[in-house]
Amino acid sequence: MPLKPKIEQPKSEARRVGFALVGIGKLTAEQLIPAARTSEDAYVAALVTSEEDKGEAFARAFDLTDQDVYSYDEFEQLGERGDVEAVYIVLPNSLHREYVERAAKMGKHVLCEKPLGVNAQDAQAMVDACREAGVKLMTAYRCQYTPHHWAARDAVQGGRLGDVKVLDSIHVQVEEDPTAWRLKKEYAGGGPLPDIGLYSLNILRFVLGQEPEWVFAQQHQPKNDPRFREVEESVSFMLGFPDGVIANALTSYDAFKTTSLRVMGNKGSLLMDPAFPYEGLKLTVSDERGETRPSFPHYDQFGLEFDHFAQCIRRDKTPWTPGEEGVQDHVIMDALYQSARSGQVVKLPKPKKKRDAFRGEKPRLPGQGK
Amino acid sequence: MPLKPKIEQPKSEARRVGFALVGIGKLTAEQLIPAARTSEDAYVAALVTSEEDKGEAFARAFDLTDQDVYSYDEFEQLGERGDVEAVYIVLPNSLHREYVERAAKMGKHVLCEKPLGVNAQDAQAMVDACREAGVKLMTAYRCQYTPHHWAARDAVQGGRLGDVKVLDSIHVQVEEDPTAWRLKKEYAGGGPLPDIGLYSLNILRFVLGQEPEWVFAQQHQPKNDPRFREVEESVSFMLGFPDGVIANALTSYDAFKTTSLRVMGNKGSLLMDPAFPYEGLKLTVSDERGETRPSFPHYDQFGLEFDHFAQCIRRDKTPWTPGEEGVQDHVIMDALYQSARSGQVVKLPKPKKKRDAFRGEKPRLPGQGK
Amino acid sequence: MPLKPKIEQPKSEARRVGFALVGIGKLTAEQLIPAARTSEDAYVAALVTSEEDKGEAFARAFDLTDQDVYSYDEFEQLGERGDVEAVYIVLPNSLHREYVERAAKMGKHVLCEKPLGVNAQDAQAMVDACREAGVKLMTAYRCQYTPHHWAARDAVQGGRLGDVKVLDSIHVQVEEDPTAWRLKKEYAGGGPLPDIGLYSLNILRFVLGQEPEWVFAQQHQPKNDPRFREVEESVSFMLGFPDGVIANALTSYDAFKTTSLRVMGNKGSLLMDPAFPYEGLKLTVSDERGETRPSFPHYDQFGLEFDHFAQCIRRDKTPWTPGEEGVQDHVIMDALYQSARSGQVVKLPKPKKKRDAFRGEKPRLPGQGK
Amino acid sequence: MPLKPKIEQPKSEARRVGFALVGIGKLTAEQLIPAARTSEDAYVAALVTSEEDKGEAFARAFDLTDQDVYSYDEFEQLGERGDVEAVYIVLPNSLHREYVERAAKMGKHVLCEKPLGVNAQDAQAMVDACREAGVKLMTAYRCQYTPHHWAARDAVQGGRLGDVKVLDSIHVQVEEDPTAWRLKKEYAGGGPLPDIGLYSLNILRFVLGQEPEWVFAQQHQPKNDPRFREVEESVSFMLGFPDGVIANALTSYDAFKTTSLRVMGNKGSLLMDPAFPYEGLKLTVSDERGETRPSFPHYDQFGLEFDHFAQCIRRDKTPWTPGEEGVQDHVIMDALYQSARSGQVVKLPKPKKKRDAFRGEKPRLPGQGK
Repeated sequence: MPLKPKIEQPKSEARRVGFALVGIGKLTAEQLIPAARTSEDAYVAALVTSEEDKGEAFARAFDLTDQDVYSYDEFEQLGERGDVEAVYIVLPNSLHREYVERAAKMGKHVLCEKPLGVNAQDAQAMVDACREAGVKLMTAYRCQYTPHHWAARDAVQGGRLGDVKVLDSIHVQVEEDPTAWRLKKEYAGGGPLPDIGLYSLNILRFVLGQEPEWVFAQQHQPKNDPRFREVEESVSFMLGFPDGVIANALTSYDAFKTTSLRVMGNKGSLLMDPAFPYEGLKLTVSDERGETRPSFPHYDQFGLEFDHFAQCIRRDKTPWTPGEEGVQDHVIMDALYQSARSGQVVKLPKPKKKRDAFRGEKPRLPGQGK
Repeated sequence: MPLKPKIEQPKSEARRVGFALVGIGKLTAEQLIPAARTSEDAYVAALVTSEEDKGEAFARAFDLTDQDVYSYDEFEQLGERGDVEAVYIVLPNSLHREYVERAAKMGKHVLCEKPLGVNAQDAQAMVDACREAGVKLMTAYRCQYTPHHWAARDAVQGGRLGDVKVLDSIHVQVEEDPTAWRLKKEYAGGGPLPDIGLYSLNILRFVLGQEPEWVFAQQHQPKNDPRFREVEESVSFMLGFPDGVIANALTSYDAFKTTSLRVMGNKGSLLMDPAFPYEGLKLTVSDERGETRPSFPHYDQFGLEFDHFAQCIRRDKTPWTPGEEGVQDHVIMDALYQSARSGQVVKLPKPKKKRDAFRGEKPRLPGQGK
Repeated sequence: MPLKPKIEQPKSEARRVGFALVGIGKLTAEQLIPAARTSEDAYVAALVTSEEDKGEAFARAFDLTDQDVYSYDEFEQLGERGDVEAVYIVLPNSLHREYVERAAKMGKHVLCEKPLGVNAQDAQAMVDACREAGVKLMTAYRCQYTPHHWAARDAVQGGRLGDVKVLDSIHVQVEEDPTAWRLKKEYAGGGPLPDIGLYSLNILRFVLGQEPEWVFAQQHQPKNDPRFREVEESVSFMLGFPDGVIANALTSYDAFKTTSLRVMGNKGSLLMDPAFPYEGLKLTVSDERGETRPSFPHYDQFGLEFDHFAQCIRRDKTPWTPGEEGVQDHVIMDALYQSARSGQVVKLPKPKKKRDAFRGEKPRLPGQGK
Repeated sequence: MPLKPKIEQPKSEARRVGFALVGIGKLTAEQLIPAARTSEDAYVAALVTSEEDKGEAFARAFDLTDQDVYSYDEFEQLGERGDVEAVYIVLPNSLHREYVERAAKMGKHVLCEKPLGVNAQDAQAMVDACREAGVKLMTAYRCQYTPHHWAARDAVQGGRLGDVKVLDSIHVQVEEDPTAWRLKKEYAGGGPLPDIGLYSLNILRFVLGQEPEWVFAQQHQPKNDPRFREVEESVSFMLGFPDGVIANALTSYDAFKTTSLRVMGNKGSLLMDPAFPYEGLKLTVSDERGETRPSFPHYDQFGLEFDHFAQCIRRDKTPWTPGEEGVQDHVIMDALYQSARSGQVVKLPKPKKKRDAFRGEKPRLPGQGK
């Protein structure tokens, strides 16, 4: 038989970092579980969910046993699981803090979904808890780990666009379900801004490697739409970066799905459109010679996140997007809401470091040597 | 000989409206003269220029005689030219008012390049002068006359996008010549805002058919760039329309050429990119079913302008973009500059009419019946 | 806890059709296994492989036990597995016939990868074996099951393009490994033509719903390239359909990955580019009014195949692409090779049915009602 | 007055080459006349037409006098016009030879529209006539003079695509008027093949710089369509180039406007789509790193032709696309028609030179130094 297909069987779990996934929603089921399957450095060792049946079904699909499934009440039992070195918090925003703190107490490293918390104070508390417990905390900003977004950053910072002058980003979509927790202030902390507008904010900061000095925002919250009783429908905001660089951004929970990023310098420009989906990112860099669209080997955004955090744990490094990176976005979002209320420009404190002020160890991109 | 090509010879000038072109720059030479050649309703009957030689060369190229070329001092001699029914002012912004007033005094109708003046007061004076003289005044907003921009407006106002929530427009380019009159406050009245940012402002108002209720702006004027001693380099602005609709816009004289317009509603979105060049406009309308890119028979934007104004003259109608439309943009730009100075939101007066408050007779689009 | 994510757990296997996957290569591992996981109508009940270790690893990943893994020698033991109603043959082409016949003898329905065999005679033997055994045989032409390809077919057959006149398709890629079984005549039956050129051939027939009347081909087989000792490098071919419709096609194992389909009628045209990958298909339909790019909810091509065959089994229907459809492509490819040898046009027999002569029950597209 | 626009007035005609345009159809009116206006090296000095009125109207539009307009009977009077150094033949194909010969007799250089004649013999006679008369003959293959097509050729010949293996080109459009001379065999010499399919043929040869060794074609001529009583509706053809490189091509007079060129090598590919219009060419080069779309300063294709021929006249060089280039396409098209009749491959004679066997002096591209 000539059958020697080149597919390797899944690697040993010996050196990989075991994660407990906390919360089984759409993201966990459709993205995180498949991603963990392809990760070279991480694997899923346990599940935490309120629904025992679902947990066990997923456990089976995952090559786990029923004993690997925990309820939220049993969360602390993970402390005895030596093979669980990290937890990945995939819960509504308002629950992040509680579970980050409980995980830290058990000495588990924490990967936490964005936004880190519900406001800067809440997020800072998580950073503090993890620091005190001596565990690592990473904010799950997947777009800071993709080859596409790094190529955009390199075009910006490598001078290919000349001096960057103005930027523009959009992240809007329609949230149809009035009962979604994302529309409850208590659980979400806000509306589209901390959920999807955060991508624009975070990636604008990432490609520039700098922090805004001032912000301005206006928001709209319609009176008769049951979806927007507690949170805003749309936010338009402006960020003032050093050297007079200005960025515009739009976010909304009631506009046809659009995600885009533009950076314009005096020698060229770049467009990512779409800029933030899990698949199908498209980057175009333009200058006088024409347009270039780089292509990259296929990758899984969540797999890259898992890999990076697992590597940081193994090598004892600060993640590229630690808790501090998540706090900083909250500081800015707090200022944006303040500006929207006051109709005035809000100034922000200057960071101590000039570049990548809140970031840690650079991630290894797929295809790069180790 | 079987040669019966279907090309018609140029039509008689009998019923067409004769224009005097005032100012021979790049726009006149490369766009207006070719456009007038293809117009069904207009033709060039005279030229006004400070350079006799150039004027005569263009006159010959235009099938005019040396007697059809006038210096600025001889401008009033056009009064005796019964075949010159209208003048097209293509001069630096600060000269618009003088020549509009001189033309009005002679009883000539006036098509004036955008921006209409250097500020709202200046522009209003032109409107007043033309009204008093009983002549028509049209602001040359070519983008309000193209099938592409009307298709965008129809998508917005016809409900195809659902309820419009947020908009975004960009018009940036690099102005390299520090000696250009566009960089002199005295001649231009401002920097990129009244020159190219005006396209965004004007077309955002056009596609919505509504007027902003408030505005906010921030601008950047670098200290050491000789180009920006008098005018701003970049302006970022925000427009608040009725019902909480918000638009973001960016303009700059030091960023790689980009022109775009996005409108996002809760059922669909549209993108024009590029949005403002003379040729090659591309409109994409997206909704759940996919993307549509309408195509149109080839047209000349300036030809459509000429045609519309000539038709308004023949039929005694108010042009779609009369002087009042130009004044309103100045009112808004004055408010934008005021906001940029104060760092605060500036409120605008409510117009009397709800829709298309400052517009006249709808233009006939190419392909539409008469 | 407010956690009520809407993810359903995997459905019961009760009414789903159990498949044995025969052969574990790249396609099985990366496409078929994930596809089966999302199928509503099928699931994987057993694996057949020559490599026990790999089989068991995949079994675990699949929620199967070691007892569900069979060697090729143990293939007939599947006969006792009542839960295995169908086998999916994913072996080198030359082995299809043996395993189809062995499966048919056991009374198992057979889904067989394309090309069905190594030539028309070989493929016809499989059809005969399955007919005699009273089992269903389906050729795994995934592109005849996607919403994109059906939208293309609908545009062609629904008159949107007017009368179709000419078509063009390309499927080329670089096969780098000289030891690949695809480059061995004994295992593959040919070079790029039966492997990837077959997509062009099959989809050209599909969108027209008609059969070619004549064919012409030329091929290239370089002398010094170790990859092409046994099979051709490139084939260019022409298909003559009824009413003078002509299609051109190109296939190659040494050209940068390109997959495209164009259909040109006298009222419009369509372009699929890329036309044949697992993900990212893009269809553009053009006519005088412009371009349209339909979008569809996300789907898995292999999942749609599984679903269709499982439904045909449950409802006792002939699959849309039965063995006969696979035979017909072999008849045409045999003629193409004959033409390439002779340098002459080769005529083909007329099918009995006018439209979709070799096809069965239309598949249900995602989103269509049952 | 600060008005110093940088538009130059039209240059002196002293050193430019004066052309007589022979035939005033759509191409002359809409393309050649505007092109000549922008040429640095050529200008229109006279017009030859059968319609005196139209000629005089165009003369006026062109800054010529009525004395510059000639009827076909008066053609030989151009001999006395020392300022007319060249004629541009823009007549139905069957009249090319007569007017080329009459021009040659007068010692005028000749730029002749494509196809050069109605068959190879006819075209060769023109080459002979010009050689004997000592005048230059250029075939007006505009696509061999554009930066876009040269960039495609450079990508092919500069190795960026690796070894080129297969090519594909399409040029189809709908010819609606049954009375058009293009549909009369006597005037046109054939149907879409010599008119628009010729672009594919000519550019495939151009980008490769090589000549086909064999050809194959099939054509369709519907019985009941009044447009295709004399000429074919569609032709599909295949060209075999040295080293096993194969090109497919499609042309039709009854298919929605499509023009495309693809070249696929083992390291990359290129796509021009559209490939042959006067404006809006788009070139995309793809390889493993992604896609590149070069941009070029705006140019006029006919202006580049005028310039090249004028420069060849001034410097006494053989044009890049001399009569011989036009003859070679006729040799190939004669072979294609022969193949379509016989259903067999037709071999072609080997050219003496290996590369660019029938071409002369390379044209200067816009932006290149002199």
